[in-house]
Amino acid sequence: MTKTKSPGASRYSSTCDTLFINANLATMAGPGTIENACLAVKGNTVEWTGPMTSLAAPPESLAGKVIDCSGKWILPGFVDCHTHMIWAGSRAKEFQMRLAGKTYEEISRQGGGIFSTVRAVREASEDRLFNLAKDRLTRFLHQGVTCVEIKSGYGLDPENELKMLAVAGRLGRNFPVHVEPTFLGAHALPPEFSERSDDYVDLVINEMLPRVKSQGIATAVDVFCETIAFSRNQTERVFRASADLGFRVKLHAEQLSDSDGSALAAGFNALSCDHLEYLSPKGAEAMANHGVTAVLLPGAFYFLKETRIPPMALFRKMGIPMALSTDINPGTSPVFGMTPVLNMGCLLFGMTCEEALAGVTINGAKALGLDHKKGSLEPGKDADLVVWDIDSPADLCYFVGRNPVETVMISGEIVL
Amino acid sequence: MTKTKSPGASRYSSTCDTLFINANLATMAGPGTIENACLAVKGNTVEWTGPMTSLAAPPESLAGKVIDCSGKWILPGFVDCHTHMIWAGSRAKEFQMRLAGKTYEEISRQGGGIFSTVRAVREASEDRLFNLAKDRLTRFLHQGVTCVEIKSGYGLDPENELKMLAVAGRLGRNFPVHVEPTFLGAHALPPEFSERSDDYVDLVINEMLPRVKSQGIATAVDVFCETIAFSRNQTERVFRASADLGFRVKLHAEQLSDSDGSALAAGFNALSCDHLEYLSPKGAEAMANHGVTAVLLPGAFYFLKETRIPPMALFRKMGIPMALSTDINPGTSPVFGMTPVLNMGCLLFGMTCEEALAGVTINGAKALGLDHKKGSLEPGKDADLVVWDIDSPADLCYFVGRNPVETVMISGEIVL
Repeated sequence: MTKTKSPGASRYSSTCDTLFINANLATMAGPGTIENACLAVKGNTVEWTGPMTSLAAPPESLAGKVIDCSGKWILPGFVDCHTHMIWAGSRAKEFQMRLAGKTYEEISRQGGGIFSTVRAVREASEDRLFNLAKDRLTRFLHQGVTCVEIKSGYGLDPENELKMLAVAGRLGRNFPVHVEPTFLGAHALPPEFSERSDDYVDLVINEMLPRVKSQGIATAVDVFCETIAFSRNQTERVFRASADLGFRVKLHAEQLSDSDGSALAAGFNALSCDHLEYLSPKGAEAMANHGVTAVLLPGAFYFLKETRIPPMALFRKMGIPMALSTDINPGTSPVFGMTPVLNMGCLLFGMTCEEALAGVTINGAKALGLDHKKGSLEPGKDADLVVWDIDSPADLCYFVGRNPVETVMISGEIVL
Repeated sequence: MTKTKSPGASRYSSTCDTLFINANLATMAGPGTIENACLAVKGNTVEWTGPMTSLAAPPESLAGKVIDCSGKWILPGFVDCHTHMIWAGSRAKEFQMRLAGKTYEEISRQGGGIFSTVRAVREASEDRLFNLAKDRLTRFLHQGVTCVEIKSGYGLDPENELKMLAVAGRLGRNFPVHVEPTFLGAHALPPEFSERSDDYVDLVINEMLPRVKSQGIATAVDVFCETIAFSRNQTERVFRASADLGFRVKLHAEQLSDSDGSALAAGFNALSCDHLEYLSPKGAEAMANHGVTAVLLPGAFYFLKETRIPPMALFRKMGIPMALSTDINPGTSPVFGMTPVLNMGCLLFGMTCEEALAGVTINGAKALGLDHKKGSLEPGKDADLVVWDIDSPADLCYFVGRNPVETVMISGEIVL
């Protein structure tokens, strides 16, 4: 990262609640960094960032609380924009099967794979699901994640899809981490609708969606558009119904083949298209034209031993924002936290460190439609930040298995 | 893993210092596991393992301390048999260079790469090196590593090679983790010996080796045999001098090309040959004939974006023990802890979970010549063990970024 020049005459002489001093700052508002910097928090937002030299008075006279970072780095809290964090049961045995050579598609068609998770989720009480997911979310928080999207999609009937979204809501109310719940009723075709996928799509549209809407328990709607999931036409039906109810949409698109889902999603002004290994230039163009964020999920790519990476050059050429996410789920990406994903984004997808770090902050926020208040450290935005014990932001991409979190603040409160 | 039948009439009626009860046990002494088991520790060794049903009396009457594992799993502490844990300086910028397309060989030939670490290590005081390595070893301990090999090899002159080994010794004395120091003077050709590699090998043999021997600060000698390091002939000279002084040897072999180093090392009854991506059938045969352990290092393979994996089928066919290690080092494997390596061993090298787990326990111990007392939980062996909060041992291979360590015991003492 290049070093940003200090903003000339600007001086900080206000008073704030918390003042971080002697920090190095990667605000992610732009490509630069500010070394020997400070950051002021007032209420639950960032009030000011700048070099130490522009403090108009001794720090103690400007703030209720002063935190000396001693040269450590402050970045925005990580935003994980694509997770399936609520599940029950174990898929470790399936992992062993896959090591023995079975493909995701084979396992899925054999009724194993995702359906073992669906069974376990249906059998689990809301409390049980909450406790299981609580452990996961706690681990994410301890790794510097301050905002997380959580999808339903293992219930696959009205009762259990609503149960999953209720758990997501409880997680949001019981944790400082901001939770953004997404309804993914059209994740897979449940066994009881075998050969009747249009009937299941009817159920999603006519029963689940209106109930999700009336209960106000999701902010977006997602679909898995793929040969092993739902067709482009079925996806379009769900999107149309969602848009009619005022939901933003997003799509699991072009992961294992090109279904031309991204262009469809772009037509609905989707928040994001996710996976995208098989995205065509035409699909990319549609995404660019509609400002759709590309969400890259190297964990699933790695676990599935895929060999075709998303069209990185196209994203760069067309200026499509690239977000990076864990995709945490028990079948294809049992990945906890963003540092493994930063590393995989660089080594497997060829992202630069700067691209990867933007992917887990400002572009992650963009993928959730939250970039007006999250994902970068700028005056007026939420004071969601992490102090890292690292030599440079690149360390977060470079090390594997090292978690150098020092302090986590969410909405102006120190939570760790 | 298959379930082992309980050993018939055997009953435990002795008294011990610590008794773990209600555990699931993967002793790694063989392929099976014992569910609903207990493990007795007396002094610093394991006294007994078996099913709960064979306790001859209530647990409290048999032990000074009873630890109820509530269904959690006990495995031997991890043995990391190949590390370069002592270094100074940062190579995160080099990571960025490599992302931009430079190869390890190019970076090495440009005097970057390893030589930036050599400079930093030479400039660092012994205290500074100790404190840097202490942080790393602490993180390893917190991830269940109870025994670790640490190599010199960034000093590359008598003073600084001895300084590194002194640091390794201090780590061993100041930490409960068992440290096995290895002298790797022939790691790279230092810049001041450019074009005079034989002279450097003379220095290693005539000055460094005797001093390492007389100070008793290393238990084995390692060499990097490769086109960018030392030739087969030079390796042979170092090995001969080491053997004459009574050292066991080991080799960085066939990582980037086939130098036929493994067959040479086997002729010296080496403890291990490490890396082995380019190992030939002839080399494998020599290893098998001399009982040499293959140490697999998927972290370096992954970071260097290599595509040729070690000849796994040959290892299996010839019964060569496979160990698995972090190879932690700042240039090619900045990997902290064994769970990332377990996962990469499975996904990148196609190991089964059972092979991978044996690789970080009993076969890691074999690679250090310590399998008579470490690497498995058997009566008489060191009580080095970890209680894991997992559903099955496969979880340790399957999850990424999750560290489910519950309790760590080393030599009969609870250290975490």
